[in-house]
Amino acid sequence: VVVKAHPGHMATAELTAEAIVRAVVRCGLPGGVFNMIFGTDIGAELVRHPAIQAVGFTGSLAGGKALYQLAQQRPQPIPLFAEMSAINPLIILPQALQTRAEALANELVASFTLGGGQFCTRPGLILALRGAGLERFKSALCAAVAGSTPQVLLNAPTLQHYRQGVAALAAHPRIEKLASGIAAGAGQAQTLLWQAQVEDLLAQDTLLQSEVFGPLSLLVEVDDVAQLQAVVKALQGQLTATLHAEADDGPLAASLLPLLCEKAGRVLFNGYPTGVEVCDAMVHGGPWPATTDARGTSVGSRAIERFLRPVCLQNAPAALLPPALQDANPLNLLRLVDGQWTREAISSSH
Amino acid sequence: VVVKAHPGHMATAELTAEAIVRAVVRCGLPGGVFNMIFGTDIGAELVRHPAIQAVGFTGSLAGGKALYQLAQQRPQPIPLFAEMSAINPLIILPQALQTRAEALANELVASFTLGGGQFCTRPGLILALRGAGLERFKSALCAAVAGSTPQVLLNAPTLQHYRQGVAALAAHPRIEKLASGIAAGAGQAQTLLWQAQVEDLLAQDTLLQSEVFGPLSLLVEVDDVAQLQAVVKALQGQLTATLHAEADDGPLAASLLPLLCEKAGRVLFNGYPTGVEVCDAMVHGGPWPATTDARGTSVGSRAIERFLRPVCLQNAPAALLPPALQDANPLNLLRLVDGQWTREAISSSH
Repeated sequence: VVVKAHPGHMATAELTAEAIVRAVVRCGLPGGVFNMIFGTDIGAELVRHPAIQAVGFTGSLAGGKALYQLAQQRPQPIPLFAEMSAINPLIILPQALQTRAEALANELVASFTLGGGQFCTRPGLILALRGAGLERFKSALCAAVAGSTPQVLLNAPTLQHYRQGVAALAAHPRIEKLASGIAAGAGQAQTLLWQAQVEDLLAQDTLLQSEVFGPLSLLVEVDDVAQLQAVVKALQGQLTATLHAEADDGPLAASLLPLLCEKAGRVLFNGYPTGVEVCDAMVHGGPWPATTDARGTSVGSRAIERFLRPVCLQNAPAALLPPALQDANPLNLLRLVDGQWTREAISSSH
Repeated sequence: VVVKAHPGHMATAELTAEAIVRAVVRCGLPGGVFNMIFGTDIGAELVRHPAIQAVGFTGSLAGGKALYQLAQQRPQPIPLFAEMSAINPLIILPQALQTRAEALANELVASFTLGGGQFCTRPGLILALRGAGLERFKSALCAAVAGSTPQVLLNAPTLQHYRQGVAALAAHPRIEKLASGIAAGAGQAQTLLWQAQVEDLLAQDTLLQSEVFGPLSLLVEVDDVAQLQAVVKALQGQLTATLHAEADDGPLAASLLPLLCEKAGRVLFNGYPTGVEVCDAMVHGGPWPATTDARGTSVGSRAIERFLRPVCLQNAPAALLPPALQDANPLNLLRLVDGQWTREAISSSH
C-alpha cells in the first residue's frame, strides 16, 4: 500500500503515517506493507507504475478523471476507484414541509455547513415542492444561514476554489442569492444560500450540478410531482440522495425511490447525508461522476472488495490448499459448498 | 439486455435468440428484456449509447481493447468486461513427466485440438522441465499430433486468422515446427506443434504470448526450477494456469502456486483447462490481457456480480422496503444483520 499525502496537510499526514507504521510493527505485519509519499505530480507517476495494481482516490472531478484516463492508458490497465463529485440532492415532500418546516431548515443548514461544508456528502441541492410550508421553510432557512458563522477551510487553495465556485453562481443570470451568513474575514468562507430555477436543472445546466466544496447550498422550488420526477431523472450520479417524507407522503416517496436508487449509492429517509458510518451496510459510492466505479464503496466493510480478485483452485491437492479452503474449515468461515452456505467441515466422504 | 450476434453464425444466433424470447414469454418476464442486433460497427455504437450501462464481450485482444477505450471515453464511462486473450500455460513437473509422459501427451493434444482448438482456455503453451521422461513425452506428443485430423473452424475469417498466426510463428527465427497433423484440405486447419526457446519467453517476446485461435500449441523446455519460476513471472495474465504434479513434486508445486495465482483466474492441478463448468466456484477471468477486469468472471454464478451495484437504503420506512430487506425476510435470504449472517427475521424489538 502506497499512500500519497494530501499537500494541504502534510504534517498531519506524516503523524498519521507514523501511527500506522507503529501499528504495523506492533501487529507483526510485514515491513513495507504501508508507505507514504509526498508530492504533486508523483500521484500520476504512482498510477502509471507497473507495480501498482489498483488505485483509490478522493478528490476533484478533474483530478479523478485525469488519473482514471492514466490508469486506462497503461499497457496493463488497472482499476481506479475515484470518489469525485456529488451535490447530494435532498428532497422535501409536501407533508414533511408542512409539519416541520423550521426544524428542517435548521437541521439542513447545520448539515451543509458541517466541517466548513467540506463533506463530500454535503447536501448541495435542496428540492422542495411548492405548497403549504414552503414560505415558512425558506424564511427559516434564510434566518439560519444569516446567523451562520464564517468558517476556516482546509487550506488556501480550498478557499480559493470555494470563492471561484461562488463567483460562478453569482455570474449565472438565473441564480440569485437568497441569504448570506455572518461576513467573513480574510481567509474565511462565508455561508451562502442560493436559489436556482427548476427549468435550468431540467435542461441539465452543468453549473447547477457542479460540486462547490464549502458552506453553501442551492434551493430549487419544484411545481409538482411530475416535475420532481423529471428533475431526479435529469440529475447526474450521486453519492447520496435524501427524502424527507411523512406518512401522507408515502405514495410519492414510493414513486421516487426507484429513481433515486438509479442515481445514488445511498438513499436516506428523514436524515442528513453528512454522516458516513463505517459499517457493513454503508455504500459510499455511486454512479458517475460521484465515482469512476459504481460497483464499489470507499467506506464500510465492503470497501475491501475493490482490491480483491477471485481465484479458482481446481482439483488442488489437500496439502496445497490455504486454510480458507481446507476441508476442516479451520478458520470457521461461512462457505458455499455445493450450493449451500455452511460453516461445517467437508467430510472425507464428500 | 442487448446482444450483438457474432457475424460468423448469424442464423444460429437468431435461432438461439428466438428460444430465449420464447422462454421470456413463458416465464412472464417483461417484453423487451432480451434483444439481439446484427452488424459489425453496431457494436461500437452500442457501447457508446447512453442507455447501455455495462458491457460484456468475448473476442480478440484488438477488439476488446478498442471497445474498452470507447467505454472509458464516454461522457459517463461504464464497466466493460472483455474476455480477450490467453495462452493458458500448462506446466509439467518432473515426477509427473516421468510417471505419465505418454498419457500426458495424448490428453494434452486432445485438449488443445478440442473444438478445433477454438477454446479460450486451450493450452497454448506447454512448459516441461528437462529431465527423465521429457524425450518420451516429446515423442508421444509428436505422434499424437501427427495422427490428429484436420478441423473445420468456425468460419473463413477464423481460419484466415489461424493461418496468419501460424505464419507468424513460422517466420520467427528461433521457433521451430515439431510436428504436423494430417494434411488439411481447403477450408481446414491443420494441427501443429511448435517449439520455442525459454530465453525468448524470459525476454517477454510478444509472439510467444500471443493467442492463436485454432489447433496448435507451443512447447518450451525449461532447465530448472529457478528458470521455471522466472518464466511464470514473465507471463502475462491468463484465464487459466495448469500444473501437472505427482506427490514428489509437492514442494515445487507449492513454490509455484502463489506465482500462478498472481497470473490466472483459475489454477488447475492434473487436469486440462478446456472444460469450463457453470458452477459457484468457477472463475473464468483473470489479469490483463485475459480480461479488462480481473475482479469478475464471465462464467459461473458470480458472473451476475459484474452487472450489480450496491445501494444503501438508510432509515427507509418499512412500507417502502423491498422484500429482500423487509424485517420478516420473506425471501428467506441469508443476510448480514449486525455483523452476523442469518436467515432469521429481524424482531420488532431490534
